[in-house]
Amino acid sequence: MKLLREKVMNEGIVLSNQVLKVDSFLNHQMDPVLMREVGAEFARLYQGEKITKVLTIESSGIAPAIMTALELDVPMIFARKNKSLTLRDDILVEKVYSFTKQETNEITVSKKFLSNEDRVLIIDDFLANGEAAFGLARVVEQAGASVVGIGIVIEKSFQPGAKLLQEAGYRLDSLVRIASLENGTVTFA
Amino acid sequence: MKLLREKVMNEGIVLSNQVLKVDSFLNHQMDPVLMREVGAEFARLYQGEKITKVLTIESSGIAPAIMTALELDVPMIFARKNKSLTLRDDILVEKVYSFTKQETNEITVSKKFLSNEDRVLIIDDFLANGEAAFGLARVVEQAGASVVGIGIVIEKSFQPGAKLLQEAGYRLDSLVRIASLENGTVTFA
Repeated sequence: MKLLREKVMNEGIVLSNQVLKVDSFLNHQMDPVLMREVGAEFARLYQGEKITKVLTIESSGIAPAIMTALELDVPMIFARKNKSLTLRDDILVEKVYSFTKQETNEITVSKKFLSNEDRVLIIDDFLANGEAAFGLARVVEQAGASVVGIGIVIEKSFQPGAKLLQEAGYRLDSLVRIASLENGTVTFA
Repeated sequence: MKLLREKVMNEGIVLSNQVLKVDSFLNHQMDPVLMREVGAEFARLYQGEKITKVLTIESSGIAPAIMTALELDVPMIFARKNKSLTLRDDILVEKVYSFTKQETNEITVSKKFLSNEDRVLIIDDFLANGEAAFGLARVVEQAGASVVGIGIVIEKSFQPGAKLLQEAGYRLDSLVRIASLENGTVTFA
């Protein structure tokens, strides 16, 4: 996606070989026109797939997900992240480990919003190790619903998430794929 | 706002005299068409006010804020909520007390995204005691920027936030105002 690629080139800050900071347009300050274009692109990619729900995780996934849901004309759900919860029988819960924060969170979705007839498109801002995407996919499957695909705004292809998701049989669509952040430079895949 | 009022009537669940659950269209599952209409309405209300930034707080404020920012054609910023942070000189920090969760969070915005020339529209999903809105306003003022107004999706007018914000001199625009949740019924103001 050209506009996104340009944003990454012009505004992305390489903090290390692993970390790309994009807080000027994606995960703190957000560019609404870019978000709309991202949503339109995911909708185009999943046109005809009879998506019934878009699922993401708070917080940076919400803007691309709501724009995608608007284009597809379906509801969006954002999973909540909690340190830990007392068990409740009306929610779906999965554990997600964050390599960045080195902590395990529980992600939750109310059971009433996912049924076994749902065809779900998962959207997230970043794909690195794939923990969040796998967690969201397990939530969908726990509800008996189908994961039709996983749409990622920025994939760090040098980390294992993309390969693991594809090996697990998921359809994966990343709008920008980064091969390397070495020498302080963004190299696209 | 008619569409929003209907949603509140048809899908809002009164949990107590204080708490209205709207997780089917506003703060867990989200209705993207409603969010677009909410954004269009805030943009209409602040047309001509030369807004330069829309500011909200994660997570439920993000969808209405990004739609408002899209209509106004300005960037959106979402403040992050943290338990507590080590002091850093590149961020604006304010404390916000949550009556619901009975805990104090720090909300943060990177200094680089707010300057003293900014004219800011604050957006949030709910207004109850006003703690979040006041915290966001203090962040804006700490940066030397102007709070042009505060746009709220659902105001619980029987709680003190609305009155306190107006007494403090802020322009407040709430799309739906709820006078009471007594007897398990939503009464609009």
